[in-house]
Amino acid sequence: MNFSSTFIPTLREVPADAVIASHRLMFRSGMLRKLANGLFAYLPLGLRSFRKVEQIIREEMDAIGALEIKPTVVVPGELWKESGRWDSMGDGLLRVKNRLNNDFVVSPTAEEAFTAIVRDELSSYRQLPLCLYQINTKYRDEIRPRYGVMRGREFVMKDAYSWHSDDKSLDETYQAMGRAYRRIFKRCGLTVIPVKADSGAMGGSGSEEFMVESEIGDNTLILCKHCDYAANVEKAGCQPDFHPRPSVDFAKSAAADTPPIEKIDTPEVKTIDELCAFLKNDDGTPMSSKQFIKTLIYRAVNVELDLSKAPGCGADDGCGADDGCGADDGGAKLERKKPAPDAPYVYPEAFFAVAIRGDLDVNEVKLAAELKAGEVSLASDADVVRLTGAPVGFAGPVGLTSLPVIVDHTVTGMNDAVTGALAKDLHFKHAAYGRDFEGWMLADLRTVKAGDRCPLCGGELYEKMGNELGHIFKLGNKYTRSMNVSCLDENGKSLTPTMGCYGIGLDRTLASVIEEHHDDAGIVWPASVAPYHVIIVPIKYDGAVKAAADRLAAELEQAGIESLLDDRNERPGVKFNDADLTGIPWRVVIGDKGLAQSIPQVEVKRRSEKENRMVELDKAAAELTGKIRAELAELSG
Amino acid sequence: MNFSSTFIPTLREVPADAVIASHRLMFRSGMLRKLANGLFAYLPLGLRSFRKVEQIIREEMDAIGALEIKPTVVVPGELWKESGRWDSMGDGLLRVKNRLNNDFVVSPTAEEAFTAIVRDELSSYRQLPLCLYQINTKYRDEIRPRYGVMRGREFVMKDAYSWHSDDKSLDETYQAMGRAYRRIFKRCGLTVIPVKADSGAMGGSGSEEFMVESEIGDNTLILCKHCDYAANVEKAGCQPDFHPRPSVDFAKSAAADTPPIEKIDTPEVKTIDELCAFLKNDDGTPMSSKQFIKTLIYRAVNVELDLSKAPGCGADDGCGADDGCGADDGGAKLERKKPAPDAPYVYPEAFFAVAIRGDLDVNEVKLAAELKAGEVSLASDADVVRLTGAPVGFAGPVGLTSLPVIVDHTVTGMNDAVTGALAKDLHFKHAAYGRDFEGWMLADLRTVKAGDRCPLCGGELYEKMGNELGHIFKLGNKYTRSMNVSCLDENGKSLTPTMGCYGIGLDRTLASVIEEHHDDAGIVWPASVAPYHVIIVPIKYDGAVKAAADRLAAELEQAGIESLLDDRNERPGVKFNDADLTGIPWRVVIGDKGLAQSIPQVEVKRRSEKENRMVELDKAAAELTGKIRAELAELSG
Repeated sequence: MNFSSTFIPTLREVPADAVIASHRLMFRSGMLRKLANGLFAYLPLGLRSFRKVEQIIREEMDAIGALEIKPTVVVPGELWKESGRWDSMGDGLLRVKNRLNNDFVVSPTAEEAFTAIVRDELSSYRQLPLCLYQINTKYRDEIRPRYGVMRGREFVMKDAYSWHSDDKSLDETYQAMGRAYRRIFKRCGLTVIPVKADSGAMGGSGSEEFMVESEIGDNTLILCKHCDYAANVEKAGCQPDFHPRPSVDFAKSAAADTPPIEKIDTPEVKTIDELCAFLKNDDGTPMSSKQFIKTLIYRAVNVELDLSKAPGCGADDGCGADDGCGADDGGAKLERKKPAPDAPYVYPEAFFAVAIRGDLDVNEVKLAAELKAGEVSLASDADVVRLTGAPVGFAGPVGLTSLPVIVDHTVTGMNDAVTGALAKDLHFKHAAYGRDFEGWMLADLRTVKAGDRCPLCGGELYEKMGNELGHIFKLGNKYTRSMNVSCLDENGKSLTPTMGCYGIGLDRTLASVIEEHHDDAGIVWPASVAPYHVIIVPIKYDGAVKAAADRLAAELEQAGIESLLDDRNERPGVKFNDADLTGIPWRVVIGDKGLAQSIPQVEVKRRSEKENRMVELDKAAAELTGKIRAELAELSG
Repeated sequence: MNFSSTFIPTLREVPADAVIASHRLMFRSGMLRKLANGLFAYLPLGLRSFRKVEQIIREEMDAIGALEIKPTVVVPGELWKESGRWDSMGDGLLRVKNRLNNDFVVSPTAEEAFTAIVRDELSSYRQLPLCLYQINTKYRDEIRPRYGVMRGREFVMKDAYSWHSDDKSLDETYQAMGRAYRRIFKRCGLTVIPVKADSGAMGGSGSEEFMVESEIGDNTLILCKHCDYAANVEKAGCQPDFHPRPSVDFAKSAAADTPPIEKIDTPEVKTIDELCAFLKNDDGTPMSSKQFIKTLIYRAVNVELDLSKAPGCGADDGCGADDGCGADDGGAKLERKKPAPDAPYVYPEAFFAVAIRGDLDVNEVKLAAELKAGEVSLASDADVVRLTGAPVGFAGPVGLTSLPVIVDHTVTGMNDAVTGALAKDLHFKHAAYGRDFEGWMLADLRTVKAGDRCPLCGGELYEKMGNELGHIFKLGNKYTRSMNVSCLDENGKSLTPTMGCYGIGLDRTLASVIEEHHDDAGIVWPASVAPYHVIIVPIKYDGAVKAAADRLAAELEQAGIESLLDDRNERPGVKFNDADLTGIPWRVVIGDKGLAQSIPQVEVKRRSEKENRMVELDKAAAELTGKIRAELAELSG
């Protein structure tokens, strides 16, 4: 392709809103233009690289037996109502009404559409496993789209979905996907960090995110300095032994010497910070937040966990009317029901107290997972008053029987703590776990921080910001159950398939390649994703130079190597700058001087290296072909 | 690919709503499934054929130097407001508001998005011509989607747009596109009818539609039995000589003998049908509608034609207050203004009388084109009364001076006609063109019908129903002007580029291939669009048969020939039926009997032929490869 026959509008200036390298360089190199906030057009150069990422993904999906299909981008709202996501997805979901007042969704993901297709075709377990995918346009209505295609509104995603008759089969496909993802990112020249992650609004459990490190990442990653432990902070664990477990025999524990628990006046002192300032240690130093037990009241919805024996939740718990089981129910059992005939029983609403060391934060994702709850959130002030008998700020685990108390592992090591006394302006001091209170449940609920210890090896944990490029999930039967998918098993009985889903964002993957492969002068493409492999720069596209340039381009094309010939009537400096900016892996400069040698020579330079070499014109095509094939093979290997 | 490893859910039954062959066969062969009315998912088999159509189109676009880009599917409403189509497109345009209350459009075409991209990059005429295209998802909110993907809501279109510094350059690209389109359809095995067409809501003039004949087509085509004239009825012309032109010297014309014009009472007789029943010829027979001059009053908006000398339109026409130039303007000039600074002057509103032979219909598209009007429609009853001085049903060209009269060519041959006398219950008889009235303008305005004469050769015209697969337009500067696109010309002056646009519907093209290539048993694919070239049917996929089938599949793959191996444990009859249904061009049946011959044999059958032949197993791959390459070459040739 000749430069003047294509459309590569390179820019000297940097767009004002481009703060990261990929955004800057995709604009400056003429790969991309903006149509509106979060909406971008790939120009010819950008589309070439985009299609290479697409083809790498397609090849790896096909290689593991996933089958490509093409549903629509605009999908019926009815399907999203069936799955429940019409309501649960929030404003990020672009909803449309057409002229007939039918509801539609511009797809952000396609669990519903794929499940609807499979539902109608599935009759026997023998059709399973089945894995389908698409590479198609998606839309998420980001409130603040930024960083170019790294966080755009419209984007292209490869999304695959699989259906299985049992968990073993799901796990096989899940593992194969994980391997395919590792190959995809390797072929793109990307260093990814696979992390255990929360599966969020997607539902289900068992998932892995493929992250790239990024200063502007929207995920906090927790990594171990000593092993390969990596997790999203939303789900990261830490070494339980770091926080001593309670001694079985309290008299023999470190708490045996703690003075008896004692009520103290704390007028208008409600927050941990206020307590630290107000209370002093015996030696007169201010208390540390690590000496307090923070107790938070949470409201959880659609709790699957069995609460029949939990304090304040069952009729047989001996509690009275004010027992936290709902309004004035006279001690009746907490309401429990099935949202759908085939769904498990859930408690539509339940309240819990969570006790955690004062310097730490409760990770609500972990809490929801422990409770098997649809969602958890802090209870309203009115609910706190009703359930603890005190204003907000005075809750504590001691004597709290109106609702289940969940104790974080950190609290089990606290034997001389300050905590709320369930009455206005009163706290306890000398509270000891195992002596003065216990929990209904012990759990790891803390948000892990840098400096905590790795749950696998005890090494020190540290934090990185990351961007998610891909995500593989075990969805379970969330969609197959809500959308009534079934087939017959080998005994002729009805089987609800279990499901996995697997996504990769193409735009973000491409931008991340640039983030990892660039320098001050521009992009430095890996051969696999480069828009062209070679840029041929004739000093002046005329006479013998033109003939040599055309010949080299033809020889490369013959060998299947893609070249861009800069035939523009521009100064060499302009051409060299554009060659660096567009990041094409190999540059060949052809001038009269080199051609005038006894054996005509051209100058060959690799974009990633400083030095250039003179190569015989006759051998240039073969040499470049060899180098490029070697790099492609290395990336694929 | 093994049949059992892919997902081809063939059906015996026909979907209830599938009335055309392609709809029926795409469902039955497992190519397609429905997500909702007008929204379809391509399954693996369908997607393979779809991608082949896509690739053929891409190759032919690239071959003429068009450059592929990828804008978004969801585009900012602001761009559509700039072009004016936000208002003019009607309810077929899917409009969306996002969470921030921004307006968006799910693209039905992309003149605006492409023009916006080019606008920002264009500085010099040297960058022109420029031709960009995309192959991307589109949405049109069809009220009654039907016939499967032939008239769906979401579809994929290749849409190209070009910009030029002059009409000559536009014409070159337009002609190259026309040639590319002919090649595309030929490669797909399609017989298309290129017709002159109206460019409708797209604006501009100079366009060609590529139609396929279809019983359920939404276009009426006018074709000549003797030459290759073909036109959409909306723009079809016919032989002017078929309707004699007026003689310059009336005394020497056929009308010289016509009795003088005479007023007759026609109480309550207003329509042509009523007149035919009411009036008799001298010999007592009822009059024919061909003896009447029908006169219709039209309201036109945004008329570019110069009306300064037209009756009833200019201050210098000597007319009074009631001259049809608008309300009570006292004879003032008809209002004329520029809708935009760079736009030509238009009359926002003007009225016209059209006189045409009584048996014919006025083609409003032709009328709008003659008037260079944005839109024409029948005037309201009140306007008719105001302008003709008579109730509806009594208009006629004789003595009509309050507005311009446009006379259709058919009327110029009428020398003894009946027509309205501009007064209630009165008509004229013996009216003769050239003696009793003339028009302000003569034009071809009739809607052509079967039986009319070809405008090129005089041959008899006939009608066909057709479906549009592609359309190429000369848009002119409609978008470049409204969206302020300009660059400098060779003299450093501002130039507004002229523009072309060129679309092909991929889904409809694929469905049309099936319409043209099927029989009672299923699809009969041309090799170029077939999902696989060869289907290998082992009678029982076991032992030596399995080995032979696997070997043949491997040999074909080696040669670049795509095969589907039916490894299912089904009766041969089921496999044969599915082979016919899916339409794969070549079928190879492998059984023990053939393999047991002294030289092992397999049965080879072409889908389009009845007979099969035994071929040596060792030679089957080479023979099939040769035949398939020959067919592909022929389609490409």
